[in-house]
Amino acid sequence: MEAYLDNSATTVCFEEVAHLMHKIMCEDYGNPSSMHHKGVEAEKYLRDATKTLADLLKVDEKEILFTSGGTESDNIALIGTAMANHRRGRHLITTMIEHPAVLQTMAYLENQGFQVTYLPVDHEGKISLEDLGRAIRPDTILVSIMHTNNEIGSVQPIVEAGELIKRMNPQTLFHVDAVQGFGKFRIYPAKAYVDMLSVSGHKIHGPKGVGFLYIRKGARVNPIIYGGGQQKGMRSGTENVPGIAGLAKAAEMVYQNLDQDMDRMYGLRDMLIEGISDIEDVRVNGCPGREGAAHIVSLSVRGVRSEVLLHALEERDIYVSAGSACSSNKPQTSATLKAIGVERELLDSTIRFSFSVFTTAEEIQYTIQALHELIPALRRYSRR
Amino acid sequence: MEAYLDNSATTVCFEEVAHLMHKIMCEDYGNPSSMHHKGVEAEKYLRDATKTLADLLKVDEKEILFTSGGTESDNIALIGTAMANHRRGRHLITTMIEHPAVLQTMAYLENQGFQVTYLPVDHEGKISLEDLGRAIRPDTILVSIMHTNNEIGSVQPIVEAGELIKRMNPQTLFHVDAVQGFGKFRIYPAKAYVDMLSVSGHKIHGPKGVGFLYIRKGARVNPIIYGGGQQKGMRSGTENVPGIAGLAKAAEMVYQNLDQDMDRMYGLRDMLIEGISDIEDVRVNGCPGREGAAHIVSLSVRGVRSEVLLHALEERDIYVSAGSACSSNKPQTSATLKAIGVERELLDSTIRFSFSVFTTAEEIQYTIQALHELIPALRRYSRR
Repeated sequence: MEAYLDNSATTVCFEEVAHLMHKIMCEDYGNPSSMHHKGVEAEKYLRDATKTLADLLKVDEKEILFTSGGTESDNIALIGTAMANHRRGRHLITTMIEHPAVLQTMAYLENQGFQVTYLPVDHEGKISLEDLGRAIRPDTILVSIMHTNNEIGSVQPIVEAGELIKRMNPQTLFHVDAVQGFGKFRIYPAKAYVDMLSVSGHKIHGPKGVGFLYIRKGARVNPIIYGGGQQKGMRSGTENVPGIAGLAKAAEMVYQNLDQDMDRMYGLRDMLIEGISDIEDVRVNGCPGREGAAHIVSLSVRGVRSEVLLHALEERDIYVSAGSACSSNKPQTSATLKAIGVERELLDSTIRFSFSVFTTAEEIQYTIQALHELIPALRRYSRR
Repeated sequence: MEAYLDNSATTVCFEEVAHLMHKIMCEDYGNPSSMHHKGVEAEKYLRDATKTLADLLKVDEKEILFTSGGTESDNIALIGTAMANHRRGRHLITTMIEHPAVLQTMAYLENQGFQVTYLPVDHEGKISLEDLGRAIRPDTILVSIMHTNNEIGSVQPIVEAGELIKRMNPQTLFHVDAVQGFGKFRIYPAKAYVDMLSVSGHKIHGPKGVGFLYIRKGARVNPIIYGGGQQKGMRSGTENVPGIAGLAKAAEMVYQNLDQDMDRMYGLRDMLIEGISDIEDVRVNGCPGREGAAHIVSLSVRGVRSEVLLHALEERDIYVSAGSACSSNKPQTSATLKAIGVERELLDSTIRFSFSVFTTAEEIQYTIQALHELIPALRRYSRR
């Protein structure tokens, strides 16, 4: 049996998505900027994709900007906002447990003379609204808070944060990195006072190399890539028509039976956590039950190095992640795990299981059994 | 009969490329950053693609940086160089006939306090080395010259320009936008003193949404997108594995029989130019014969608006471009045509035919016949 439990790193592409992309690449391959009907046809794919995504988020079609992925979306949201609003202020707020696409971009902006406040999180990985309220200043131009954490699955109080931000400083823009939350939760930016929202294709069984950024109409954001003026000048470059159509198709598919799928995934999560509860000295990181995401289980296993456990599981065709595999393949000590207060000894002993709609109960049972066999064995080995 | 003669806007994807991408999306879908073997497998696709492209350019594998396309490649080359070298100087040089991905990015850099010299071109669309030599200053940090013009197919003296630049100021970096030249010419950056070279996938029967930038080892260039540190920190974001593999496959295929393919394409170009030579008042723009690119024919047809001719050809299933369809679908007056001295009256009467390896002599004959019928008819119509 094979159990691919690394879906927060990337997902298999839906067959329907790959099929559609193949058709567009080899038949309806026009450039949307071309004036003849092959261009018009290509443009229709873009319009349809835009409508699908706008409808899912209940936003206007003009508010969807296609990008090359979640990282670019985050970069536009942060750098684009900073560049467009620096005369109003140079203060930004984010959290200590953001994805590197936000943290590293914030570091770049600090080098450019911006000031960044990093909100701490509690032991479940949640920010406090009090901290957020205290951090907002008259010169705060942007708050960026992730929806669902990629390492431990903690979910932030986005709606409450949005309300608070707009009450304290209506000029402050609110960006949400929803790369792990989109496709798992129903997210409506307008209801949560969200001005920008980042989404990636390959986390929802869509293609790699494509994503989008929701930008609320009226939000002042500069482009970061210049050229032919595609997408109203906000993101130049020939649109990735097959990728964009594939992304929209995948989004449509993951939202088709979302409630049942999430119920089932929460069931798998409970099954895994329950199934390993009798193994001593294993800590479950993140929010318990339905407060966290359905698809992520982070375990700290005392006395076993994550890399060792990862490869032992791999030998049984179980694929998981050590820390966060979203970033480069030289894993660094996780900022998220440190921020939630995981003791130093466990930082290097943490692995992440992440599910998708394709994950089965059999795979979880198989994984539970493997963990029961491997953890004691590896502990004996490492004690020698 | 259908004649798709808009291959400089975009090309049909090779079936082999689409097939490979389908396989990677649905079977070998791992994240190259994952430590388990699905990640290793994905990384191997990246390494193989890198090797293919590096071998074609005769450069080192470490010098290939994957991007989301030609526009992003150009943006990294320009903005990344400007940001990394602004302490040494703030002067940049380019030509008046660059693609908007260069011209608009230069305009952005001018707003950021950089100074840009725009080299003129002669009536065939070629820069003069004397002009270039005069423009280079001690504080010139970058020269960006396109290999093949996208509207008229003129080809610049890249090797001579590279030699001249390095002789006059060895510190000046040399960027070449080869989006229209790669796959049509054998280009060896090291021989031409080129420090950076931009390439796009979808112009060579590869996928949209992917490209690469050659960056010579040692050239100081900053990233413009920050995050997980992929590609040695130079371009964060999960790599578009299927797109990258598809791009390399397409490149391999277009270079397989390059000489024969180019001979054939020059033949088609001659056939078209010869075939319409008896229609009066039609001007062929660009370099004659083998001095220009094989795949582009630009015609200015007095008395017929390009949009009208484009749609008349479209009714016969002949697809061409008015001006350059690489940019947004609101065509502006072409900077290239103005720069080569096309008279004002003809600026709006210019159409571009662009070929690919799939273009046949029958399609060209069919197009010649259509032009013979349409141009006189449309002229009569417009004179009424």
